[in-house]
Parts: sequence; C-alpha cells; structure tokens
Amino acid sequence: MSSSAERDFVTAHLDDLHADLDAWLRIPSISADPAHAGDVAASAEWLAEALRRTGFPTVEIWETEGAPAVFAEWPSADQDAPVALVYGHHDVQPVDPLELWEHPPFEPTRVETPDGPELHARGAIDDKGNVAFHLLGMRAHLAATGRDTPAVTVKMIIEGEEESGSPFFADLLRSHADRLRCDVVVVSDTGMAAPDLPSAVTSMRGLADAEITLRGPAVDLHSGSFGGAVPNPLHALAELVASLHDADGKVTLPGFYDAVRPLSDRERELMGRVPFDEAAWLAGPAASRTTTGEAGFSTQERIGARPTAEVNGMWGGYQGPGHKTIIPAEAHAKITFRLVADQRPEEIGPMVRAWVEAHLPAGIEADVHVPAGGVAPCASDLDSPYMDALLSAIAQAWDTQADQVLFMKEGGSGPEADLAEQLGAPLVFLGAGLPTDRIHSPNERVLLPMLHRGAEATAHLWRELAGVRPPAR
Amino acid sequence: MSSSAERDFVTAHLDDLHADLDAWLRIPSISADPAHAGDVAASAEWLAEALRRTGFPTVEIWETEGAPAVFAEWPSADQDAPVALVYGHHDVQPVDPLELWEHPPFEPTRVETPDGPELHARGAIDDKGNVAFHLLGMRAHLAATGRDTPAVTVKMIIEGEEESGSPFFADLLRSHADRLRCDVVVVSDTGMAAPDLPSAVTSMRGLADAEITLRGPAVDLHSGSFGGAVPNPLHALAELVASLHDADGKVTLPGFYDAVRPLSDRERELMGRVPFDEAAWLAGPAASRTTTGEAGFSTQERIGARPTAEVNGMWGGYQGPGHKTIIPAEAHAKITFRLVADQRPEEIGPMVRAWVEAHLPAGIEADVHVPAGGVAPCASDLDSPYMDALLSAIAQAWDTQADQVLFMKEGGSGPEADLAEQLGAPLVFLGAGLPTDRIHSPNERVLLPMLHRGAEATAHLWRELAGVRPPAR
Repeated sequence: MSSSAERDFVTAHLDDLHADLDAWLRIPSISADPAHAGDVAASAEWLAEALRRTGFPTVEIWETEGAPAVFAEWPSADQDAPVALVYGHHDVQPVDPLELWEHPPFEPTRVETPDGPELHARGAIDDKGNVAFHLLGMRAHLAATGRDTPAVTVKMIIEGEEESGSPFFADLLRSHADRLRCDVVVVSDTGMAAPDLPSAVTSMRGLADAEITLRGPAVDLHSGSFGGAVPNPLHALAELVASLHDADGKVTLPGFYDAVRPLSDRERELMGRVPFDEAAWLAGPAASRTTTGEAGFSTQERIGARPTAEVNGMWGGYQGPGHKTIIPAEAHAKITFRLVADQRPEEIGPMVRAWVEAHLPAGIEADVHVPAGGVAPCASDLDSPYMDALLSAIAQAWDTQADQVLFMKEGGSGPEADLAEQLGAPLVFLGAGLPTDRIHSPNERVLLPMLHRGAEATAHLWRELAGVRPPAR
Repeated sequence: MSSSAERDFVTAHLDDLHADLDAWLRIPSISADPAHAGDVAASAEWLAEALRRTGFPTVEIWETEGAPAVFAEWPSADQDAPVALVYGHHDVQPVDPLELWEHPPFEPTRVETPDGPELHARGAIDDKGNVAFHLLGMRAHLAATGRDTPAVTVKMIIEGEEESGSPFFADLLRSHADRLRCDVVVVSDTGMAAPDLPSAVTSMRGLADAEITLRGPAVDLHSGSFGGAVPNPLHALAELVASLHDADGKVTLPGFYDAVRPLSDRERELMGRVPFDEAAWLAGPAASRTTTGEAGFSTQERIGARPTAEVNGMWGGYQGPGHKTIIPAEAHAKITFRLVADQRPEEIGPMVRAWVEAHLPAGIEADVHVPAGGVAPCASDLDSPYMDALLSAIAQAWDTQADQVLFMKEGGSGPEADLAEQLGAPLVFLGAGLPTDRIHSPNERVLLPMLHRGAEATAHLWRELAGVRPPAR
C-alpha cells in the first residue's frame, strides 16, 4: 500500500462522504416519473448546496424543458492549466418491482460483505455515488497540495435526466456552450472490471431505435372464418424479426457494417487483458444459459466493440387468459441498435426502412417510426496526455502501475457522445462502479471502498492534469 | 313463390316473432362477463317461459358450473317417429368497442335496407334470432298439420356459455345423456351464403390451442451491457413462429396432415358451386388487401375445408412509449389450430411440443401449455335421409328445389362436435345467418326475412322428418 497526502485526507474524512451520500440517496429523484419532479428538483438543490459547501465559488441550477441540471465551476489560479469538465447525473432509475428489494430503496442501508462494506440504495453508484466522491476528492486535492484553488479549473455539469434518455441535454450543451468550454471531459458514470482490477472505460456504444408496425386486415378478424386465407401480421412480424440476423449472428440491415471501423490488433489485445470468467458471468449478471452472437468475436468484443440489434419488445393480438381466436389487425416491434465508431445513429433509419421494405409479404403494410436523435458512439484517445493523467491517478489510488490499468469498452450508451461532439473536447472515464452493482435493478449497491478510491483518484487526477498543456484555445 | 299452410301461418304471425325477439334481445346475456351472470340467468328464464307459452309440455332450466342451459321436450304422439334435438345458445358476445355501435346493442332497432328490414342488436342472429324462429316454426307446424303434438319428438338444448367456449357443455351432455337421447341433432347456430342462396352447412372445423413461453435470461437484461452476447427470447420466438408455415403455406408441425381426409372431387365440386366474389370478400368482411394460404386450394377451401395454424397473440418485452433497452426474460405466443376430419384436437399438443423442441436455439427453454379439451371437427352425412329432409324443408321455405340448395363448410368451431360424439347422433345444420351479419362485431344485425324463412323451414322440417324411420334404438 502506497501512502499519499491525498489518501491520508480521504481516509480521515470518510464519514463526510458517507454522510453526504446518505442524505442525497434519501431523495427519490426518479426522473422518469412525473410524480417525482419535486424530488428531482430537491436533489439538484441538495447537490448545489453540497458543492457550495465544498468551496466551489460558482454553483448554478440550470433549468431545462425537463429536469434541472447543476453547474459548478472552480477556476484554477493557474490560468494556463487545462479546464476539466466533470459529467454525471443526479437522477435515478425507477425502483419497480419494489417487492424484490431487500431494503427500502431510499433508505440507504450498510451491509457488510467479504469484499468490504456495501451501501444499498437506488442511486448508490448510478450515479450519486460516482458524483459524490468528487466532493471529498476536491477537498483532498486542495488539502494535499496546500492550494486555495484547484491545480486545474474544474467545472461540473450534473444533469437530471440521464435515466430518461437525456432528451434536453444536447440543447443544454448548445445553449451554455461558452460556460461549459473545457479541454477534457471527465465522465463519472461508469465502472471498473473488479475491485482489484482498476480499469478505464475507453468507449461507449451508440444507440439508434426504431418501432415497426405491420398492418394486415383493417380489423381483428375471426380466425375460424378467415384463418388460413388472409395475411396475419403476427406471422409477417415473426418472419421479419427472424430475418434481422443471419446464421452467423450478423445484422442483416443493408449497409449496417459499412461504417464500422475494424477492431485493431491492439484493441483486441487490450480487451483480451481484462480477465473474464464467462461461466461466472453467465451464472451471475447475465443470468443466461449460454452465450451467442456474431461469429468470430469474443463475448467481450460482442458486448463492447461490435454493433448489435436487439428486439426490446414485440406484441400484437390477444395477451389475456385463455384464447381469443383472432387474426389481429396489427403487430408491433421495438428494436434498438448499438453502434460503434464510425456508425452514425441518423444513418440507421433508412437502413431499417429498406430492410422492412425488402421483407414485407403481400398484403401487409409497414409503418416504420424512427425517432430523431439517437446516440453516437464515443471513445477516448488511448494515447493522449489526458489519458496518461487518468491512468496515473487511477494507478495511485488502486496501488498499481499506470501500465497495469486495464482498458474496457462499455456496451451501453449515454449522452457522453453529445459532450464530445458539442464541446469538441476529448473524453476520459473515471467511475467506481462494478459489474455486480445491480444498477437499474432491485438492490442496487456500491462497494464503499471503490468510492473511497474514487475520491482519492480525483484528487490525484487534478494534480496530474495540471502538467498537461492544452493546445491554444 | 310457392304457398303452403306453414308459410301462411308464419306470415300471419310475424309480429309474434318480432315481439319475442325484441324482448329477448333486451336482456344483455353476455356470458364472458361475470357482471352479467344475472342477465344470463334472466335470458334462460325468458326462454323457458317462451317455450312453455309455445306449448312444450316439459321445460327445465339446467344449472351447470357456469351459466344455465334450457331444456325442452315435446313428445310426438307417433312413437316410431324420430327424435330431433335442436341445439342453440342464449348467451351473446361482449359489445366492446361500444362507441362503434350505430344503435345501442341492447335496444333492438329496425333498419330498412334494399334487401328488406334488418334488426340491429347484439345477438340478433347469434344466436337468439336462430333460436327464436323455432318458437314460431313449431306453432306453424302444428297449425299447418292440424296436430296436437309435433310429427316428430322435438327436444331443445339451448346452452348459456357458447360465447365463452362452452366449458361445461360436454359435462352437461354426459350427465343428461338419457334425457337428450335423439336420432338427429338440428344445429341452429350458422348461416347461409346469401339471401337468395339457400344453403346448408355440412361441416365445422375443430380447434386446438397452445400457448408457448420461451425463457432466456432469468431477468430482463440491459441490452447495452448484454446485447449481442446472450440469446434474446424474442428473436427465438420470431424464428419459431416464422417456421410455423413453409413456403407453400403448409403447417410444419410434424404429422399435422397425417389424419387429414383428402378433399374428394365431389366435395370440391359442391364447394365450388357456392358463388364467391373474392374481390368483394376482400373489400368487405375480410377487410384485407390480398388472400394468402396453402398452395393448391381455393380461398373457400382454405377457410372451410383445410386445417390451419394462426398466431392469435404474441408478446414479450417493452410495449410502452419510447424505448426501454432490454433483452426480456420471456416471450409468449398463443396459437390456435383449426382442424378438419379426421384430425383430433388431443393429437395436436404432442405435435406442438415436438415442433418447438426441434426449433429451440441453445440457451432458450420452452414451456408449452396445451389446455385439455379442444374441439373436434364435425360434419353432416350428405347422403342421409335426415339431410334429404333438411334440404327439402329449406327448398320449400326458400322457393327452390332440394338439389339447388348449396353445401357450405363452416371454418369456425363450436360444441357441435360434442353433440355428435356424446349423443352418437348425426348432425344437420339449419341457420338463418348471413356473412354480412357482423356477428361478434359492433352493429350485429339480422335480415328479418331470413328469420321468417327459417321459421317456415323448421315447420317443414318436423313434417319431413316424420317420414324417416330411424334405426332401432
């Protein structure tokens, strides 16, 4: 175990972190539920107050058409130092099904485990835990370096709608572009491979979605009087969805892979370094009997580095008890596509339309709805000085060497691509989650030592980043 | 126009038929809705009273585990005459969606049309109209022949649960087998091809159903973190359903066609005699853009004479607004199979299981639920003396010759097969419905002249049947 002034400060003030998180987690800031709009606002107020208490001279609540975001800024006395912008969110996922929680989701409960103490609550890691460690981290940075201002200018943008798909976040970034200008974005909304496997996320997948409605007869028909003689939209939908992948597990949309950057040998080598126990993964988080997917790629590559198509919902006709002998008038499917560099979400809609068109049987009409927007894939530059600073900070907090920090690709998608695109700044990812944290599920938890190390890592990061000279702005 | 004493009596007493039907249709005897259980009981009481008023010496209400049935018997003085049992039902379909009705469904409304007066109400033809004409028909028979008792012994069994799938009807038949003993069953729950195309249904399809649940991951998974690497039960369901038919539109269950009796040249010739305007059928009742189905068969044959498989409902995953990025734990489909002679409903379950088994991808488990029961296909013997009597009665009522009466195959299914099997008696079908009657839909109606002819036909039928000498009982 190495020691450092940053670690000493963090260790001496863990109770502050725990008390802050406890108070914040008691606010049920569920952004997807309009009934909790007041709680989301209260969550923003709590965070603004905590940032002021930490010492940020500028703290503002930014209203949006949806939920409020919190902005904070602490300029460095060193005017040549880089500007870092921390991204996170203060809203949380819904808690259904409530009966599966071992403890009430908004009464944070400490549970001792062989790996150390856990805190169970909705938002414990996603994302209040990941944001909260920045409060203690900033204090540790200042105390350890004896400074009145941070070594780099630190801004924070903590949005309130991430769990609702960040519908107004790109607008927010556009309308406050000047205030948010930065040299690097530090995303704190991800995790690491394991407590003893410090790691940095280097990319996230993009997202595009489509909803398909197939229409057959104008009304539901009696399947005795008409069955066997008119097209059944459920049969057509099944054929269509069955055609979404070929025998090699490849997505069949025409042109889907055209823009996909092939995985380099270096990327595959780096991904391969992350230990992965497939049997444990299947038995644990994946809760599945077997793996499947695109031929020629490992499970980790399939999840993190390759584009996919998944039907998230499909329905039509009668779903009640017993039977109802109808040929339904309509059938529906919702599909999301995960994208990798250099795919663009806006290119997927036309591909979906072409694919549906090519697979429609006679007598069936299709309505393909492709929402505007989507999420672009995003990635860190592995060779930038910001990445060097991040790896060094993580290495110090996790008692290892920078070249031992693993690189992970995150299969999920978020507004991070908006940050990179709207602000024109590179991304690095510092998050303290674990695959076992059950985010979005009942019994969400955080392993508290991960948050302690996260706080220490940010303290190191502001010091390390001070050595980077950004290109002229 | 021929004239007869039967027609004269019917014509002179049409107001009685109209008044009876009006009163009966005001009772909303919806068997599927427990809130209407009292109305179903009131409907049985109304019918029992009407049968007593008509002169039936024995009228009983038979309770079941579900809704009550009405039994009536009027023995012929001629002890060698056959015993005929009329089957019908006094319950009706639900009325949703109510807003699509042009008149309140339980306020019978007369509407003049170029074809004659219609009566609009739920149950107007299915099946209160078809039962009601027997009341007037019996009076016409007695008046025209000057008898105190009918020429044949007439029994009636009018059940109260047909629109709920007749769950307790086979039990009822078994427990009252002695009372229901008969030489021929006269089913009055079907229709004819057109007002000027008198016709007799000669078969009904059977029914078997299955519900399939496919299970993938133990819980809904995040499609970003797991998508592309674990089996998605919706994809598996689509592949399964897509495999239900081959390129020729044939059902792929192993052995599905083994018991199917090939259509004889005579049957195809008889079916072909029924005029069928496919374009009008598509534009009208089928409300579809095109026909489809099993290669090598006409639309009428596909509907009436060939077995089919239709998915009536399919669902899994997220169905709400926007998207939810999950791989669902489960996917579901409800399938019904229509059967023809000599398929048996109880043989379908094992075929479904074998088919699902053969199409399951790795990592997906299936639960196939096949309810006990089902409905066997049933058919009339075209060459029996009972059929001769029926054709003669229809011909007289519709002003034609017996050899001009068309034969129709009914694609739907009902408890008629139970009658034939439990009672060991042949079936003939006398119903006055039309394809345009909108049964089971909003704005159900009956063309009143069809009911008038139906009443006259029963009056002729009892007289014609008296000439048949049944085999020794």
